[in-house]
Amino acid sequence: MNLNPYWISGFVDGEGTFYVGINKNHTMKIGYQVLPEFRVVQHKKDIKVLHTLKKFFGCGVVRVNHDDRYEYRVRALDHLENTIIPFFKKHQLMTKKKFDFIKFANIIRLMSQGKHLETGGLQKIIDLAKLMNRQDKFKTINKI
Amino acid sequence: MNLNPYWISGFVDGEGTFYVGINKNHTMKIGYQVLPEFRVVQHKKDIKVLHTLKKFFGCGVVRVNHDDRYEYRVRALDHLENTIIPFFKKHQLMTKKKFDFIKFANIIRLMSQGKHLETGGLQKIIDLAKLMNRQDKFKTINKI
Repeated sequence: MNLNPYWISGFVDGEGTFYVGINKNHTMKIGYQVLPEFRVVQHKKDIKVLHTLKKFFGCGVVRVNHDDRYEYRVRALDHLENTIIPFFKKHQLMTKKKFDFIKFANIIRLMSQGKHLETGGLQKIIDLAKLMNRQDKFKTINKI
Repeated sequence: MNLNPYWISGFVDGEGTFYVGINKNHTMKIGYQVLPEFRVVQHKKDIKVLHTLKKFFGCGVVRVNHDDRYEYRVRALDHLENTIIPFFKKHQLMTKKKFDFIKFANIIRLMSQGKHLETGGLQKIIDLAKLMNRQDKFKTINKI
């Protein structure tokens, strides 16, 4: 199976998620851990597409999501910064998901500068993440 | 907004539906009406993508689906046969949805030959449609 890069962009516009989790973590000096993730979830009948995405990008893993659903996901900052983000800058998303992607890319840029380890930078990341999908996750950490 | 054809193929792999409804209709000589439809449903925030699809294909309509969701849909046999099907034969689907598409294309071919107006042909169409998505719709018309 060969995937055209624009097919990937269209498929991710429908099925992909750019997500930034921010969790309390007392082992971190700043008390919070920023966990960015790019993922595509499919029913197990289409697990082959997920493996083909993994091969295409040359990073990430295919894992169970829940029940009979599987996900292709990339979490490593290096891979997000140098593979995933440049790809979607070149092969642009066409739905409103592109605004999530832009915020996601900004957060990754801040993280690559180590800003998530400083109070001011972490607050900036939380503010950006709050504007993304699943805002409800941030109710309890409105202000750090 | 300009859509790359492969983006459309990827987006439809995620968000599109090839559907064949078969309804009892006593005004039809054979007693049933075959209603094929290609559709893409989106939240109203992405209605612009639906209008761009309509412009790209040069056929179909954008209508309310339900609540705050809208659909781009093509129902005309002529447009399905001469525009939608050739497009997805050229820009192939990569998920299992392609098997729905193949059955859909077969049904359209049978309809363009007028087979849906004959008992044998209608049965063939029903048998194909039963193998597609939403099999439950055909419980009551297992055999005509």
